[in-house]
Amino acid sequence: MTEFELIARYFSRPCLDDAVLLAGGDDCAALRVPPGEVLLVSTDVLVSDRHFPAATAPFDIGYKALAVNLSDLAAMGGKPLGVTLGLALPAIQPEWLHEFARGFYTLAAEHKLCLVGGDTVKSPVLSLSVTVLGSAPPNHMLKRSGAKVGDLIAVTGTVGDAGFGLRAVLSPKTMPAALAQHEIKYLHDRLNRPTPRVAEGQKLAPFAHAALDVSDGLLQDLTHILTASGVGADISLNDVPLSPAAQTWIAAEPACALLPWSAGDDYELLFTVKAEDWSRVDFQATVIGRISAEPGLRVRDAHGHIVPMPAQGFDHFAAQVHKR
Amino acid sequence: MTEFELIARYFSRPCLDDAVLLAGGDDCAALRVPPGEVLLVSTDVLVSDRHFPAATAPFDIGYKALAVNLSDLAAMGGKPLGVTLGLALPAIQPEWLHEFARGFYTLAAEHKLCLVGGDTVKSPVLSLSVTVLGSAPPNHMLKRSGAKVGDLIAVTGTVGDAGFGLRAVLSPKTMPAALAQHEIKYLHDRLNRPTPRVAEGQKLAPFAHAALDVSDGLLQDLTHILTASGVGADISLNDVPLSPAAQTWIAAEPACALLPWSAGDDYELLFTVKAEDWSRVDFQATVIGRISAEPGLRVRDAHGHIVPMPAQGFDHFAAQVHKR
Repeated sequence: MTEFELIARYFSRPCLDDAVLLAGGDDCAALRVPPGEVLLVSTDVLVSDRHFPAATAPFDIGYKALAVNLSDLAAMGGKPLGVTLGLALPAIQPEWLHEFARGFYTLAAEHKLCLVGGDTVKSPVLSLSVTVLGSAPPNHMLKRSGAKVGDLIAVTGTVGDAGFGLRAVLSPKTMPAALAQHEIKYLHDRLNRPTPRVAEGQKLAPFAHAALDVSDGLLQDLTHILTASGVGADISLNDVPLSPAAQTWIAAEPACALLPWSAGDDYELLFTVKAEDWSRVDFQATVIGRISAEPGLRVRDAHGHIVPMPAQGFDHFAAQVHKR
Repeated sequence: MTEFELIARYFSRPCLDDAVLLAGGDDCAALRVPPGEVLLVSTDVLVSDRHFPAATAPFDIGYKALAVNLSDLAAMGGKPLGVTLGLALPAIQPEWLHEFARGFYTLAAEHKLCLVGGDTVKSPVLSLSVTVLGSAPPNHMLKRSGAKVGDLIAVTGTVGDAGFGLRAVLSPKTMPAALAQHEIKYLHDRLNRPTPRVAEGQKLAPFAHAALDVSDGLLQDLTHILTASGVGADISLNDVPLSPAAQTWIAAEPACALLPWSAGDDYELLFTVKAEDWSRVDFQATVIGRISAEPGLRVRDAHGHIVPMPAQGFDHFAAQVHKR
């Protein structure tokens, strides 16, 4: 199979978006950005056995590659416009490609997103580079740098699930026996099919002060906002939102209680808003702390005492190139 | 060195383009597309030892990765807006990164192009994914599908140089002795630092009927235009534009005379124009044939006789994923 045949067979679904003038088959794709809005763009590279276990189902690889990239767009409050895919493959395996494309297009369809272009090459190692294109009004972009003293700090959904899911995949024997089958499945799904919070990001854009998506771990990602905004934060240890499955795991293995603060890959939105704007948040989100003028990040227990956090919460990837 | 430190050290040069609102440091980059123009986007992936010999100088790898991608934009007649870079690295080698970045930024500066975002990850194999963003008025996009019967077919610059350059690199002992040192250097440079014809593409956009860049080989790429436009072509074997170095090589080794028709990687623009518009072409370009209503592609010698062309001119990459 040539590259052209491969693209024709697996990556040429029709694009129904009027904003897409050209998708595939020419030197560039052509898209219309809504008048008055700016173009948003983000590129992610995922490498097999680095960003996902090599044994991950191809459907999930396709789904997740798009999800983590769309999540960056969500974190800016952007509307999706289109996506390109660079696929480096060790071999052409029709069944693998079929499933990979099915996963990718499943999530794309949920967001009415067209695959507008890309490149397919042979490589000894499977890797994927995804570039998402989107748009936003220039005064409604959710930057990292806008957090203000007094802002509430909040996070969508629950955190830690992907971290527990990864442990469940890599060391299934160490899973607590107390976990129900549906909880194990839930953790797997959270790892392999994260939900980019695209709608939530667009709702936040008009009033939130700062936002990003939780990919490196809640505390490490929060420090990005604090550094960019020149502020500090006080965080409440007990307010971290946990799923029932994560609660079951921690109840059975209390040593894991801090994992939700340092594990990445959840792709929830971490954001700050003025306290009086909290009522405008009409989707699931949890306040976990407050922006302060005092530099640094302090995690406090129920008594207000500062809890020392393990270093890997902040420095997980030092001495590695790695990372989203 | 962490990913953040690596990006800060090698890939954070200031961006002076007013159209770039955000470059790096947030979840997405933000750019302004000129009012009334459409966004053009193209993604290329280059893998070490597949798209360039692993021993290629890192300066040249950086230069070429951007050049081949900018060439896609040139082939649409687009103006560059910005570029993202996905870098998958086996190891952090400061000297390598310094030179790679220098090559990438050297070409970027020539086109006043900002690196607006990207991703850096660890991988067993060096690979690069580059996504270029540009713009064009919607009625001035140079598509592949617009060739009309009677159009002149022309190509910028000279072709075959990169093919000879690759042979010079891979089998230096088979180079003809007649080649002068400066000719050998010229062929190496054409392979490693191709010139994206960005200005030429923008000049052609208002009147050319069809265009693409020669990456897979002159004949194979011409068939893309013919297929997309539903036309045929008659080509003049002797009119292919050759550099002095290529002429020296062919004079010494006549068996190589057809290489310029099948070798890729020259990144010249192949385009079609109405005969009466030829006078508007004010840069170096050579007419090599004419679009015909009769389907198929015929290469003719000086007597008008059809010359059988070797299959690899058309089917160089069958049974491989490979290829730009």
